[in-house]
Amino acid sequence: MSQALPATIPASLFEQRADAIADAARELSVLGWTPATSSNFSMRVDADHAAITISGRHKGRLGRDDIMLIDLDGNAVGTDARPSAETALHTQVYRRWPEMNAVLHTHSRTQSVASRLFAADGAVRLQGWELQKAITGYHTHESVLEIPVFPNTQHMPELVARVDAWLDAGKPLHAYLIDGHGIYTWGRDMAETQRHLEALEFLLDCELDLKKLRAS
Amino acid sequence: MSQALPATIPASLFEQRADAIADAARELSVLGWTPATSSNFSMRVDADHAAITISGRHKGRLGRDDIMLIDLDGNAVGTDARPSAETALHTQVYRRWPEMNAVLHTHSRTQSVASRLFAADGAVRLQGWELQKAITGYHTHESVLEIPVFPNTQHMPELVARVDAWLDAGKPLHAYLIDGHGIYTWGRDMAETQRHLEALEFLLDCELDLKKLRAS
Amino acid sequence: MSQALPATIPASLFEQRADAIADAARELSVLGWTPATSSNFSMRVDADHAAITISGRHKGRLGRDDIMLIDLDGNAVGTDARPSAETALHTQVYRRWPEMNAVLHTHSRTQSVASRLFAADGAVRLQGWELQKAITGYHTHESVLEIPVFPNTQHMPELVARVDAWLDAGKPLHAYLIDGHGIYTWGRDMAETQRHLEALEFLLDCELDLKKLRAS
Amino acid sequence: MSQALPATIPASLFEQRADAIADAARELSVLGWTPATSSNFSMRVDADHAAITISGRHKGRLGRDDIMLIDLDGNAVGTDARPSAETALHTQVYRRWPEMNAVLHTHSRTQSVASRLFAADGAVRLQGWELQKAITGYHTHESVLEIPVFPNTQHMPELVARVDAWLDAGKPLHAYLIDGHGIYTWGRDMAETQRHLEALEFLLDCELDLKKLRAS
Repeated sequence: MSQALPATIPASLFEQRADAIADAARELSVLGWTPATSSNFSMRVDADHAAITISGRHKGRLGRDDIMLIDLDGNAVGTDARPSAETALHTQVYRRWPEMNAVLHTHSRTQSVASRLFAADGAVRLQGWELQKAITGYHTHESVLEIPVFPNTQHMPELVARVDAWLDAGKPLHAYLIDGHGIYTWGRDMAETQRHLEALEFLLDCELDLKKLRAS
Repeated sequence: MSQALPATIPASLFEQRADAIADAARELSVLGWTPATSSNFSMRVDADHAAITISGRHKGRLGRDDIMLIDLDGNAVGTDARPSAETALHTQVYRRWPEMNAVLHTHSRTQSVASRLFAADGAVRLQGWELQKAITGYHTHESVLEIPVFPNTQHMPELVARVDAWLDAGKPLHAYLIDGHGIYTWGRDMAETQRHLEALEFLLDCELDLKKLRAS
Repeated sequence: MSQALPATIPASLFEQRADAIADAARELSVLGWTPATSSNFSMRVDADHAAITISGRHKGRLGRDDIMLIDLDGNAVGTDARPSAETALHTQVYRRWPEMNAVLHTHSRTQSVASRLFAADGAVRLQGWELQKAITGYHTHESVLEIPVFPNTQHMPELVARVDAWLDAGKPLHAYLIDGHGIYTWGRDMAETQRHLEALEFLLDCELDLKKLRAS
Repeated sequence: MSQALPATIPASLFEQRADAIADAARELSVLGWTPATSSNFSMRVDADHAAITISGRHKGRLGRDDIMLIDLDGNAVGTDARPSAETALHTQVYRRWPEMNAVLHTHSRTQSVASRLFAADGAVRLQGWELQKAITGYHTHESVLEIPVFPNTQHMPELVARVDAWLDAGKPLHAYLIDGHGIYTWGRDMAETQRHLEALEFLLDCELDLKKLRAS
């Protein structure tokens, strides 16, 4: 492993995070949500650092060597490896919410298609689905779960600014879509984050199916 | 295992039920019908008791410790664990039909979407499908298989009352959908119940596909 | 095994046929084409006998004890087991074509839905698909592959008569659908029959997809 | 192995190519992209030779004996085996681009349906999808990725001429569809070629889904 660690981070801690990321990535790859080396994943290591996937690797076959340490400004720490191009979207989560410890970004067909379909509306609004209760803080199908769709760009600061603007307007945010691209979601630990992602994919799938059927 | 058993229930009997529930749950989880810790499953243990899944567990990884004993009023017996929030819908089946011994509640995408689509009609009416014969008591594709769709609520007594009203009106009932939620079905043993569930999912899938195609 | 064999049929021959049927059934079950104990399969054993699945068994878990011997009038030979209710459709193939040695009847969602959709037309007509060449005798995508759809009935002699009428009219027949039910296809050996079934499912899937898309 | 090799090609080189082809074929077969013995695969061996699948084999169970050597005019070298009927489309790639070392031709349902749907337009034009960046040379979702759809024919020289005409007109080409048939794509090594194929299938899937949904 070409990853050197700061004295304050024990190897066992970094390895635990790397293994948790690789395990989650393998499950998501089998589902087909990480096509053609897309998608990226991270976990917080401590108040100032996160572990994140190195750019361009096949997400179904990650090992510890495919995960690297960064600081919360997105700089590589103790390695020459290049973090994902979208690292700034991960560190934004860790900086804004001290209680959040994992971020998953996937790229399923449903996520890509839903983002295109609802891009003009600026958001997908979900209501009436029992599974909304799988998102932490939701206790009834009668609530509205709003997932913004931001325009895609190859320039990350634009996206960071859009997320900040949404949050600074005081709106709740548990996940967001990027147009033609995929989804970002997070949670207090990897299990909660995976549950959020699984529920969001299910809800988007249901919403698209219902749209097709209601038109018929 | 923190489950104490009444003297009248041998450990081997409870364990047989717990294992049968865990095995069925694993198969249903692989099919994607239990997303994000949703769904619940039970089996009758004797005239006064049932074994049921503990609330909130991942349905693909259930062990004996994830199953608990309840009486037919839905009270925990010999454990501090909390049964599924929807326990009253399971015990209703065991109280009304002494010959029924297993209840499966799942939450597939097809079940969720079909329930939304047919909620206004109050029921899905299936006719002309050979697979209707997989439901006990049906011998020809010419019969009508009616599956009511009840409004969703977080208050279980309302749902119990709707099921009672349907049955007290003398209508046949082999399964029901809850709007935006999922399906309940039951049988004399786990194999029959699994056959019912598999056939119902297939029939709902076919009905939705046909609706999309007939519109085109 | 409660199957007694005539002196002219060696045990090894019957067992080879039973194993080939069970292997094919397992593959088809994994694909979801045999829901809820539906579907039935057979192979010719000699000029006067066939091996066929016993009624009502789970098609993903067949062993030699789930296969029985019949004569070509559909009578059980050397066993008290009950053959599939649709045995007459299998024996019809073996009686009309001495060169045919395997019959597969499955019940996939696509087969069920396509049969309902094209029932009024009396047939599905496929043209322009390269995979039509997977059906023995077809050498170009420009040919027309016609698959009749017969009305469903619980009375087998009606179906036998419809198949006979089609063939007696001199029309080619490689497979047929039964409305709301499934497909029958056959071949000179199990490999050819499986290739036919796989190609037909693919072609029906494509035809339904294209119909949905052309309407949009 | 009935494959004799020219003195200039070590057995280990041919075997490496054969194993890489068989491994890729197995993965593509599991995805259902090679139905009923369709599809064919090749890799360059040296400046004058390629290894290619023998005609008509089941693509999920290829071994070294199912791969043969050809020269770049499509003639068998050191074997009596018959190469795929579509060999000329593989050798065309190796002759036109010295840097290309692998060609994959599959036959998924999505590829078949998309080719029929867009045949009249002569091409599928993809824009706005982040995953376009998985095709070598594409760096933004704002670019247009054009995949021509050529008419199907059982006469290969016609197809070769259409590909040549497209390229001679100076248009970029990373893959092409054949109407009612499937896709061809290539790359500098097998990993790049598999990434191209995976991304193209995903993009075609998304485009078809979006078309269905935009109509609703």
